[in-house]
Amino acid sequence: MRRVFANCRVLTPSHAVADGPIVVDADRIVQIGGAVRTEDGPCETVDLKGALAIPGLVNAHGHTAMTLLRGVGGGLPLQRWLEEAIFPVEAKMTPEDVRAGVVWGAMEMLASGTTLVADMYDFPQAGGEAFAATGMKANVCRVGLCFSETDEVPPGRAKECVDFVRDFKDPAGRVVADFCVHSEYLTSERLVRALAEANAEFRRPVHAHVSETEKEHAECLARRGKTPIAYLADCGLLDHGGYLAHAVWATDGDFAVAREKGATLVHNPTSNMKLGSGFARIPAAIAAGTRVALGTDGCASNDNLNLFEEMHLAALVHKGIARDPAALAAGDVLDMATVNGAKALGRADTGALAVGMKADFCALDLDKPHLQPCFDVANLLVYSAQASDVVMTVVDGRILYDHGAYPTIDADRAAFDFRAAVKRLGLST
Amino acid sequence: MRRVFANCRVLTPSHAVADGPIVVDADRIVQIGGAVRTEDGPCETVDLKGALAIPGLVNAHGHTAMTLLRGVGGGLPLQRWLEEAIFPVEAKMTPEDVRAGVVWGAMEMLASGTTLVADMYDFPQAGGEAFAATGMKANVCRVGLCFSETDEVPPGRAKECVDFVRDFKDPAGRVVADFCVHSEYLTSERLVRALAEANAEFRRPVHAHVSETEKEHAECLARRGKTPIAYLADCGLLDHGGYLAHAVWATDGDFAVAREKGATLVHNPTSNMKLGSGFARIPAAIAAGTRVALGTDGCASNDNLNLFEEMHLAALVHKGIARDPAALAAGDVLDMATVNGAKALGRADTGALAVGMKADFCALDLDKPHLQPCFDVANLLVYSAQASDVVMTVVDGRILYDHGAYPTIDADRAAFDFRAAVKRLGLST
Repeated sequence: MRRVFANCRVLTPSHAVADGPIVVDADRIVQIGGAVRTEDGPCETVDLKGALAIPGLVNAHGHTAMTLLRGVGGGLPLQRWLEEAIFPVEAKMTPEDVRAGVVWGAMEMLASGTTLVADMYDFPQAGGEAFAATGMKANVCRVGLCFSETDEVPPGRAKECVDFVRDFKDPAGRVVADFCVHSEYLTSERLVRALAEANAEFRRPVHAHVSETEKEHAECLARRGKTPIAYLADCGLLDHGGYLAHAVWATDGDFAVAREKGATLVHNPTSNMKLGSGFARIPAAIAAGTRVALGTDGCASNDNLNLFEEMHLAALVHKGIARDPAALAAGDVLDMATVNGAKALGRADTGALAVGMKADFCALDLDKPHLQPCFDVANLLVYSAQASDVVMTVVDGRILYDHGAYPTIDADRAAFDFRAAVKRLGLST
Repeated sequence: MRRVFANCRVLTPSHAVADGPIVVDADRIVQIGGAVRTEDGPCETVDLKGALAIPGLVNAHGHTAMTLLRGVGGGLPLQRWLEEAIFPVEAKMTPEDVRAGVVWGAMEMLASGTTLVADMYDFPQAGGEAFAATGMKANVCRVGLCFSETDEVPPGRAKECVDFVRDFKDPAGRVVADFCVHSEYLTSERLVRALAEANAEFRRPVHAHVSETEKEHAECLARRGKTPIAYLADCGLLDHGGYLAHAVWATDGDFAVAREKGATLVHNPTSNMKLGSGFARIPAAIAAGTRVALGTDGCASNDNLNLFEEMHLAALVHKGIARDPAALAAGDVLDMATVNGAKALGRADTGALAVGMKADFCALDLDKPHLQPCFDVANLLVYSAQASDVVMTVVDGRILYDHGAYPTIDADRAAFDFRAAVKRLGLST
């Protein structure tokens, strides 16, 4: 049956505001604006009460189950934060914990307008199933990593990564499995090349961390004579694109390599600031024609999964650094959080509101003091809006968040499971 | 009659969480925690349903009526933004416009937990009366300025400033009048000295812009052989303290002068980034023992009045700049937004929750996915909370915001007046 999201305005791909309604047939948008044809059969009508529908936000780099570790290790620099605060807790995690952390994170993301996330974490089968059950979209992966620089491929691990991409199935197609290389510094070249070769069959964009810290970037240069992005590209890992998180220390040459490979840099401004990693050169990357998306990273270095905050930060901080109020336009930031993220994750059918696209959107109530007057909707969304202005989130035409309620999630059970997992991990609250 | 805010937790001045209730007699806190003595007479009980009460936030630098100009001139650098986008519209403003913009801004601030604002704008009598009618606290001023560098005091203007401080009266004492020097570059030395001398009688902290842009700072040095802060101090303007907005280019010497004078630097991170002004050296100022508060600046350079966003930005951006995750602690940022702002504005009786203080607080609903788990409440408030987590805001013991409702404000009338003012100013929406 068709569903009509009535009484709304719609953000167009060029950041104008069009009149609704949005008419959805099964999971796709079949009409925007105009009269609804009653002769096409019965419709269910959802009254959006004047809200503005915008494309569902795309979180192009996250570790969702780290909701369990929200704020753990605050104040520590990246390497100590990982080794002293994060890894010891993660070593205790079970698939059950990941499942609880993912559902909790999905609730937070849906409440803040996110419809698709790139998730990199352990127990991706459990995580992927948890995402699928919520109805949210996710690109999940078995993380390719080995803890010694000189390590040969742990043969089991490479096989696990390939088997995961081959075997993971979400019948609804909302959750897909990708290859992942944790980073240049936590993999051997043999592992990277093994995954690149296996991907010739699947042709998926690859998830990886690159050039997050100056130390990591410099050590790669010293070790391999190449930057992390150049090295991964030379291994063939980016032949089908990639979503490359952080890129704080990426060079102009890296921007060119990413552009040529069709890979996307994923900017995580909160995490990069909170861990003291630095500022990715986003205006320069955009000027070089390289695609840039946005991510939250995990909840232990953010400490939330709120893409409105990432948009806000990205739009502001690069103006401050460049001392140029025109350094990064609000419209470019909106694209980073929507269509660019969708392209990064190999999803050509989402990230924009147009006929033929999947019906993935969120609706914002603009009838609030902080959202009036509105002279420019992109500016309003990036500089003034809050995640809490989202009143409804829709994925593949299904309502997953509706004014505080989660039609596909048992919120009480999710809270119970989440708190039990926090306790099981020995994290007192 | 006493009022008991029951079923809550309370953020203490040392950023711990204590058990409620908060018992208020008239406008003051008379008890925190423990059993309520029924033998002291009848009490009205307000159920906070488990919320966390924190001190009302203090916006130590704003131009509230610029809600009317939210987002106007986005993308322009400070001088062009002022001269091309802002001043031409402001030249048309009437007291009626200011009144409408102030009430709208007060609604936005109350909804985001702000109880006290330092407001610098034209028509302060109208603005001050509008604040007083809402029940919110404000330090207002007649702006001391003259548009020529070599201008003598326009005698009328100096007298207006002094008369305003002398004559403005809010019987409830919530709105007070202070002296204000717009900036070194928009005043003559004679005007600055005249206001400083007049203030010997009133002994109020003075509101001013200082060292916002590099150009302004350098031109002051060239013109006067001193930085703006040193110059204003030498004129006697800071003899009773001050709240000095921006201080982006303030030197170590300026930090020492401000500390010695008991003046406060007001950090406006969003505005300074959005206009490309730069980054104030806040960790250095704090290390020098100088008091730092937080402000939003006006809505045309922010584009909202949300101190949770300012806390979030301040906590993150200085870590990024210093590349040190310990550069600025969450607790210091909370103090900037509360007790430091209160001290800056000469309000010793607000900014912290303790017996004997005014009952100025907001209550946050922490029962949301993005606010759990909580390992450290200061971190949670600064990195994860949103303004919309505020469910109630209380000033002098009166509830001014309650789950979307404004008991002291006719919200429909406010919206009508605000939209009429926007239209009158020729700003299409």
